[in-house]
Amino acid sequence: MNINIVYISVKPENLEEFVEASFKNHIGTRTTEAGNLRFDILQKADDPTKFVLYEVFESEEAIRLHKETDHYKVWRDTVNPMMAEKRYGIGYIPLAPKERSEW
Amino acid sequence: MNINIVYISVKPENLEEFVEASFKNHIGTRTTEAGNLRFDILQKADDPTKFVLYEVFESEEAIRLHKETDHYKVWRDTVNPMMAEKRYGIGYIPLAPKERSEW
Repeated sequence: MNINIVYISVKPENLEEFVEASFKNHIGTRTTEAGNLRFDILQKADDPTKFVLYEVFESEEAIRLHKETDHYKVWRDTVNPMMAEKRYGIGYIPLAPKERSEW
Repeated sequence: MNINIVYISVKPENLEEFVEASFKNHIGTRTTEAGNLRFDILQKADDPTKFVLYEVFESEEAIRLHKETDHYKVWRDTVNPMMAEKRYGIGYIPLAPKERSEW
């Protein structure tokens, strides 16, 4: 299993559109990708221009397939012009919970 | 709902003890706290001394109660001497998933 925490900074004038586009990516990912276990969208409590995606996939292959989906590509092309800074992800290994069903 | 992402840097000689103590806190939190929805433990893929706790609570009150539990206090006192740097948490608001049952 692979976890990616993606840090995103959005231009203040694009917050609503960013959230709308990201919901669509969330729904597409959660409802059509067997290899995806979580796709949480968070907004920083003290700065509404900062977001986190908490992405949990069962394998590197599942991440590769995610990046080939239409919902990912539409999200990427929609939000790229909204970035205030280059977004980046940090990779993690899950230690707990240990059961796949708890993700 | 409140999400706290806690960033932890552990002394290299304490990795096993840190993980063991954190598992106990994970189990205590998940099995006894009604106001806790997630308590994931992650290890950074390219640096095994770096950890993340992904803590999801239903309210500020649930976080306050968590900090009064024995399992939290034992964890805190056990791991404090193992910190390579001061640990810190960043607060987030969840935007997706929208259903409580999906957390």
